[in-house]
Amino acid sequence: MLKALEDMPSEFDLIARYFAKPTPQAVLGPGDDCALLAPSLGMELAITTDMLVSGRHFLADTDPFQLGWKTLAVNLSDLAAMGAKPRWVLLAGSLPRADESWLAAFSDGFFACAGRYGAELVGGDTTRGPLNLCVTALGEVPAGTALRRDAAQTDDDLWVSGQLGLAALGLAHLLDQVQLSHGFSQRCIAALQKPSPRIELGLALRERKLAHAAIDISDGLLADVGHLAERSKLGVEIYRTQLPYLPFGVAPELARNAQLAGGDDYELAFSAPFNARHELAALAAQLDLPLWRIGRFVESPSAYEVRLLDENGVILPITRKGFDHFG
Amino acid sequence: MLKALEDMPSEFDLIARYFAKPTPQAVLGPGDDCALLAPSLGMELAITTDMLVSGRHFLADTDPFQLGWKTLAVNLSDLAAMGAKPRWVLLAGSLPRADESWLAAFSDGFFACAGRYGAELVGGDTTRGPLNLCVTALGEVPAGTALRRDAAQTDDDLWVSGQLGLAALGLAHLLDQVQLSHGFSQRCIAALQKPSPRIELGLALRERKLAHAAIDISDGLLADVGHLAERSKLGVEIYRTQLPYLPFGVAPELARNAQLAGGDDYELAFSAPFNARHELAALAAQLDLPLWRIGRFVESPSAYEVRLLDENGVILPITRKGFDHFG
Repeated sequence: MLKALEDMPSEFDLIARYFAKPTPQAVLGPGDDCALLAPSLGMELAITTDMLVSGRHFLADTDPFQLGWKTLAVNLSDLAAMGAKPRWVLLAGSLPRADESWLAAFSDGFFACAGRYGAELVGGDTTRGPLNLCVTALGEVPAGTALRRDAAQTDDDLWVSGQLGLAALGLAHLLDQVQLSHGFSQRCIAALQKPSPRIELGLALRERKLAHAAIDISDGLLADVGHLAERSKLGVEIYRTQLPYLPFGVAPELARNAQLAGGDDYELAFSAPFNARHELAALAAQLDLPLWRIGRFVESPSAYEVRLLDENGVILPITRKGFDHFG
Repeated sequence: MLKALEDMPSEFDLIARYFAKPTPQAVLGPGDDCALLAPSLGMELAITTDMLVSGRHFLADTDPFQLGWKTLAVNLSDLAAMGAKPRWVLLAGSLPRADESWLAAFSDGFFACAGRYGAELVGGDTTRGPLNLCVTALGEVPAGTALRRDAAQTDDDLWVSGQLGLAALGLAHLLDQVQLSHGFSQRCIAALQKPSPRIELGLALRERKLAHAAIDISDGLLADVGHLAERSKLGVEIYRTQLPYLPFGVAPELARNAQLAGGDDYELAFSAPFNARHELAALAAQLDLPLWRIGRFVESPSAYEVRLLDENGVILPITRKGFDHFG
């Protein structure tokens, strides 16, 4: 609408060059007013959208390949939390300039993630403006079987996958707020910049009926477990001693805070009945992904709150619950 | 991730207050990792995403009610161009601050448009950052019947709906680039700020099998008709004398340029066979929406170009084809 003056490759050229790939899963892919999709019989669509803003969700100098990966991964993580199989994605982006080498690397990272998890880019939009990336992801799940937030039951165990806290430590390292050993800092930065959405875990939990409720941990463990509790109208107790092992070589309190409230983990938190423990241990081995039983859902007639308990059952103060964009 | 410091209502409070409405068309609406949708049997999904950036797609001081309307309307316009019935939408927004009166008015405008066209807001995301609004819209269309860009046939008539050019004149007026009479400027500003997606027209064209190919006019008539031609591997001739009547009280050349290349019209351009002319005239009367037969698709063995012809069949020079965000 407000016209740009610079002499740059056209929007249509850029889209064709970096984002138009074959879309065998779609009836009609990019290039029309809409993409056309044929949903599978008996399946429900799980759909989610996430917006990533430069300087807020990622540092402006983030490697574009890793940013492309992460932009998609954080959306696929929402599909994982529902037990949905990724099918189609759309990408809208506002870019300050048409930097072709940046676009090429970003596109490579985006499609690397799409290929790894079986998603297909079927449409999008590009415009000029402050760097902002918005993905919509669609997955499929057999009708009535999705893992929702509101289905935790009293006495369910609370489980989490993975290590937790590494991404927050990686960010703190990049911002010069902590000192980490070189090897460990590299691991934390990788967790921050190239997270692995837990698609296989979500599918297995849903197919094997191991979990009642699930959520992905993006805003911090305490905040996201709080959403599970609130939606399920239950309380939840987290046992500090059962949290994932503290990483080596970083102050324990710092590491624990990163685990509890760091955010950007893209692990799953889920509720599961007592009798799923054995199968969940086997699943962890099969997926080569640690699963930690860290707490329990409890009746809570008044507030659907998260309580953190020490080894003696004493309630510990919670000072910071995680990330809220306007909090 | 990078934490905000201000003391503001939380993201979750804001979402609940202004954007959580009942979603009877969805299996599961906002508040979980994903929304869950049950596609209708025998239908294909038409899906589109558009990103609107402050200062580029709208002026920063645009009335928030009208901005809310337009943010959704431009996406529904893409569904109209496919002949799809709107069902579900998602809204992701980056906002510089949580201004509640702005949010309330924006939300009112967004839901006014959603209600008018039968779409339901089922999910979204809010974050802090430069003002940026990204909608994903989903509609349904019986399998195999969508109006695509690539289906125009040789000797099809080229039709457009509506007046064209008013939005571009409205913007030029707001930017003090033209002088318009008060009454006419108000009409142009309304066209700019509160466009009507041509859902009923798209549905009728598809249901009555009146059109072969269609596109919505967002980047300017010449540019968007060019997409129809290119995708259909045809040329197209536009007859200047058959364009919509020039609006009164504005220099003819200015008005004509606004019609040809102004953009932001959200009217439909479509190809239709000769024998649909009578029914299209009846449809225009029924919808109380002018439909103009402005040209013809022709064989074009080399370039799939748009030619503008005067009343003597002389080809007129085209200097500006419409809007390209990186052109």
